[in-house]
Amino acid sequence: MKLQIKIVLVEPLYQGNVGSVARVMKNFGFYELVLVNPCKLKGEARAMSSHAREILENAKIINTFNEAINDVSLVVGTTGMTSSKDDEHIRTPAYTPSELKNKLEGKNGTVAILFGREDNGFTNDELKSCDMIIHIPANDEYSVMNISHSVAVILYELSSIQSGEKSLAEPFDMKLLYEHLKELLEQIEYPAHKKDKTLLMFRRVFGRAQLTNREVQTLRGVLRIIQRRMK
Amino acid sequence: MKLQIKIVLVEPLYQGNVGSVARVMKNFGFYELVLVNPCKLKGEARAMSSHAREILENAKIINTFNEAINDVSLVVGTTGMTSSKDDEHIRTPAYTPSELKNKLEGKNGTVAILFGREDNGFTNDELKSCDMIIHIPANDEYSVMNISHSVAVILYELSSIQSGEKSLAEPFDMKLLYEHLKELLEQIEYPAHKKDKTLLMFRRVFGRAQLTNREVQTLRGVLRIIQRRMK
Repeated sequence: MKLQIKIVLVEPLYQGNVGSVARVMKNFGFYELVLVNPCKLKGEARAMSSHAREILENAKIINTFNEAINDVSLVVGTTGMTSSKDDEHIRTPAYTPSELKNKLEGKNGTVAILFGREDNGFTNDELKSCDMIIHIPANDEYSVMNISHSVAVILYELSSIQSGEKSLAEPFDMKLLYEHLKELLEQIEYPAHKKDKTLLMFRRVFGRAQLTNREVQTLRGVLRIIQRRMK
Repeated sequence: MKLQIKIVLVEPLYQGNVGSVARVMKNFGFYELVLVNPCKLKGEARAMSSHAREILENAKIINTFNEAINDVSLVVGTTGMTSSKDDEHIRTPAYTPSELKNKLEGKNGTVAILFGREDNGFTNDELKSCDMIIHIPANDEYSVMNISHSVAVILYELSSIQSGEKSLAEPFDMKLLYEHLKELLEQIEYPAHKKDKTLLMFRRVFGRAQLTNREVQTLRGVLRIIQRRMK
C-alpha cells in the first residue's frame, strides 16, 4: 500500500494557474489532479502546464466540493489566513508543510490536499469539512501566495515522503465516528450553542491524530459503553 | 550584521515570470531583486507581481553577469541539471535547498542566488563563476521547473534562516585567494590541460566551505610559505 495524494483546486479562477499547478505536480512526481467547478481550460492552461499536459488532460473535473472529499481518508485544507484565537477551531491549529510531512511519514491511505479560490479561499463550510489545516509560514506584510507557488512549496516538502505500513482509517469509518460523537453530544444534552464548535474540534483533533481503523473501532467501543451506562 | 540575500535573474525571457518571482520574494520577506539584461517589463509583469510591485520597480537592472556577482561573498547558482560525473566540477557537487540553508545558518555577509534563462539556463562560463551549485530534487521524468517555482521553493527554505556572527570572507579577499592558487599552479608547472578544472574545483571546495576572512588569510599565508620554500 502507498500513500496516495491528490491535489484538489476548488473553483480555480485563472487557467494559467491550473496549468502551472499541473507542471509543478509533475516536477515533484504527483499525478492526480481534481478540479471542482473550474474556469475554462484552454490554450493558456496548456501552455503553462508545459510538459505536464497529460496531468491537465487527465484531471478529474467535478461539480461539488463534497465529491472531492468523500472517498479520502484525510482532507487537508491549505489557507493563507490563520486565526490567532484558540477557540476558533476552523483555522486552528494550522500546521506547517513540514509538520504535515512528518505526520504522513510511514502512513498509507488516500489524502486530498485542497486549495481554495484565488480571491476568496474557502467558505467556512468547506473549511469545516477539513480534517486538518496547513499554512505556509510567510511574511506578515504580504502572506497571500500565488496558488501554484503554494502547491510548489507543499509538494516540495511531501516529495521526499516515505509511505509505510500504517493505514489511515477508512473515510466511511471516520464518518461513523463523527456521527457517533454527535449522537453522544445530543444524548448528554450538550449546550446547543456549543455543539457545532465542539464537533469541529473533534474533527480537528482526530484529523491531525490520523487514526487507524483499529483506533476508530476502539473509540466507538468506548462511546457505546458510555451510552449503555447512561441509560 | 545580517545575511543579505539577493535574487538574480539572468536574462529572463518572460515578464510574467519576473512578476511572479517578485511576488513570492515578498511572500517570504526578500526584497532585493537584480535583473541581468531582462526582457521588457510591462503590464503582465506588474499584474503577476500583485502586491509586490515595489520589488519589481526597485529591481536593479544591469547589463552583464559580472556586475551581479562582483560585490557578493557567496555566489550560488541554481540548476535543473546536475552532472553524474564526479570530475565535472561545473555542476557537482550540487546541494539541495535545505543543505544551502544549513550552510548559511548563523552566517552573515552578502549572498547572491542566481537563476538562469528559462530556455538555456546558464552558460558554462557563468556556472564556473559560481561558488556553489544548488539543485531542487525533482522527478526524473520532468525535472525542469518554472523559474518562479524554483524561487518559491528556495526562498521557502531560506525564510526561516537565522543570521549570525560568522562573517563570510569579503569577495575581494576570495578573489585574491583564487589568484594566489592560480599563481601557485603555474609555479609548480601543473599540467596545463588540468589547470582550469583544478581551479574550478578549488572554487567549489572553498565556496561551499564558506571561508571566513581569517581563514582566507591563513590559507594565503600557507601558500606564501610554500612559494618561498620552492625558490
